[in-house]
Amino acid sequence: MEPHKAPLQWISKEYYELNGNHVEILHHPPSPVEFSRLAHISRPVIIKGFQIPAYKLWSTEYLVQRMGSQKISIAVTPNGFADAIVAGPGDKLYFAEPLVEQMTMSDFLSKLSSVSHSEVYYLQSQNGNIHSKYDSLSDSNGDIAPKVSEFGALKRDVPSDVSWCSKAFGKSPDAVNLWIGDSRSVTSFHNDPYENIYTVVRGAKHFTLLPPTEGWCLKERLYPHATYKRSSTSTLMLETSRSTNNIRWSSILNPHLPGSLHPDAHPIHITLRPGDTLYLPVGWWHHVRQSEDLTIALNWWYDLEMRGMTWVFLSFLRGVEDVPSGNEDSGKGRDKITSLVEEPPSNL
Amino acid sequence: MEPHKAPLQWISKEYYELNGNHVEILHHPPSPVEFSRLAHISRPVIIKGFQIPAYKLWSTEYLVQRMGSQKISIAVTPNGFADAIVAGPGDKLYFAEPLVEQMTMSDFLSKLSSVSHSEVYYLQSQNGNIHSKYDSLSDSNGDIAPKVSEFGALKRDVPSDVSWCSKAFGKSPDAVNLWIGDSRSVTSFHNDPYENIYTVVRGAKHFTLLPPTEGWCLKERLYPHATYKRSSTSTLMLETSRSTNNIRWSSILNPHLPGSLHPDAHPIHITLRPGDTLYLPVGWWHHVRQSEDLTIALNWWYDLEMRGMTWVFLSFLRGVEDVPSGNEDSGKGRDKITSLVEEPPSNL
Ligand SMILES: O=C(O)CCC(=O)C(=O)O
Ligand SMILES: O=C(O)CCC(=O)C(=O)O
Repeated sequence: MEPHKAPLQWISKEYYELNGNHVEILHHPPSPVEFSRLAHISRPVIIKGFQIPAYKLWSTEYLVQRMGSQKISIAVTPNGFADAIVAGPGDKLYFAEPLVEQMTMSDFLSKLSSVSHSEVYYLQSQNGNIHSKYDSLSDSNGDIAPKVSEFGALKRDVPSDVSWCSKAFGKSPDAVNLWIGDSRSVTSFHNDPYENIYTVVRGAKHFTLLPPTEGWCLKERLYPHATYKRSSTSTLMLETSRSTNNIRWSSILNPHLPGSLHPDAHPIHITLRPGDTLYLPVGWWHHVRQSEDLTIALNWWYDLEMRGMTWVFLSFLRGVEDVPSGNEDSGKGRDKITSLVEEPPSNL
Repeated sequence: MEPHKAPLQWISKEYYELNGNHVEILHHPPSPVEFSRLAHISRPVIIKGFQIPAYKLWSTEYLVQRMGSQKISIAVTPNGFADAIVAGPGDKLYFAEPLVEQMTMSDFLSKLSSVSHSEVYYLQSQNGNIHSKYDSLSDSNGDIAPKVSEFGALKRDVPSDVSWCSKAFGKSPDAVNLWIGDSRSVTSFHNDPYENIYTVVRGAKHFTLLPPTEGWCLKERLYPHATYKRSSTSTLMLETSRSTNNIRWSSILNPHLPGSLHPDAHPIHITLRPGDTLYLPVGWWHHVRQSEDLTIALNWWYDLEMRGMTWVFLSFLRGVEDVPSGNEDSGKGRDKITSLVEEPPSNL
């Protein structure tokens, strides 16, 4: 294969031949310099033995009691696909954002895995809901009103940074996020401009990973934007928004469906259980499912290092050419819609 | 510019736009974790304040006295171009290796910058002449005869590793090399599969650097192999060797000649004086000159990290397609021969 005629194929093949599907497992958190080395290699690492108060404290009773009447923002969808490609008006595919509703922790937890609910609820606000780098900015500056976090009552159970990680990167995380859901919620394939430390507090999370070199196997396409709203009868409906730019997203809707991933892709499947922590390097593609009635996770997002080659290569691997529309061929579109329904993970 | 149609051009442009010609200067050696971060960014760094005994000890008298009658291997060429492209038999270009002669330190130093010598002498054995990772292997294993270094008498003046570097990379260097020469010796453009810590003890070294992304600007070509030998009248002559494979080398013979570098190349010029240390990251192209009658330098080569993306991307940037011959067009070949003569650096 000639590297400069089919560069993405050549690079992904060479990368796989050199690295295989190797995922290192550490039985203790690394030192800062060890972690810095791992970040340089930029492959996923499973880390055991990381200690945070939340692991021991966060029973359902504790969460309900500490959060009390505080309202929290929850993503609501009919099927568990928030920020994902779904079929909408006119048999067309859309990038759908969830409806966001406010409710107490107690109300939210009672809706999880409840058979009486056809709707799926997922706490996935991912805006630094536990800690945000803007917290300290607003605290120290009288002019900016401090942003009151919905999860202030849980802050003290979660360290505001991962010390070995902050020392390795020489900075604090941009955001610390709490994720709570049940086995019906799915996070579709995407990558982030962040170095990610992801830990599971309760339940189980199932990651399907692809290296940045195999992004081309995910066939990104452009999709019109839509958001779930409640109709007058209170059922969830997709509202399309013409004014918003098209969204670039992977057209592989369910990588667990046999044959849906490109044969040159080498997915890595990782299951995290309570106390397990994943280092997910910047640019790695991830699709995330959960398999218990109540799965709680936390993650720390560190801004990537912009200097050097990382960003340039990630951009190159993602490609910046014209991306085709995801609705070009209606026949193919229909195939996709059929394959869209993911079975919840069973024996993972 | 479309990234996947002209990938090397696109990558080098983006890389330059993001990083410019920035070279960080540290006024003290970094801590291991700081250095690990710098190695991840993989840009050249100038480090001041690194301390090694050689800086203070290595006067000409000291070197001559310590080395005594020990013979050392010296590269001899008619023009200072060892391991470089030079004109040979039939007006053709060759990759020429130097003649290697044995002499005492005292003899060698007296030949440097001596007007009575038309030949150029350069201590550039670069085989771990001061310390080698095989030293300890052979010491600890009775079966292998310990390799006796020509420079055993100088070993104790040079640490066997750079501590912040070994801690950052989690390994010891493969080789520690001594370089001694005068302003007539030039090291032609090349890159190495090593992370390099390079320090100047006496004199001055002038590096011209290009990032790995701009390697395509150096136009590598294939050249037949030749070696300098002494004729019966003792003059140096190129002996060509048909049996050896062609050597792939940059066809840019003198980057200081106006117009010889591709207009898209962004060379970085760095001068190191005694006590200055350069971190030259793996894969960076370097052309090296020296400007004093006696220039002494040391370097520590650390094996690159093979895991992850670094090696794959370096290979991609270098390209593995068919490389054309450097002697394809004899007219062009002659142009090159004319432009081959480098003026020694004057006011650098
Ligand atoms: O837990 C999830 O559902 C998704 C997590 C994720 O995408 C992330 O941490 O970047
Ligand atoms: O000092 C020189 O002449 C060349 C040094 C060099 O190429 C290296 O250290 O890799």
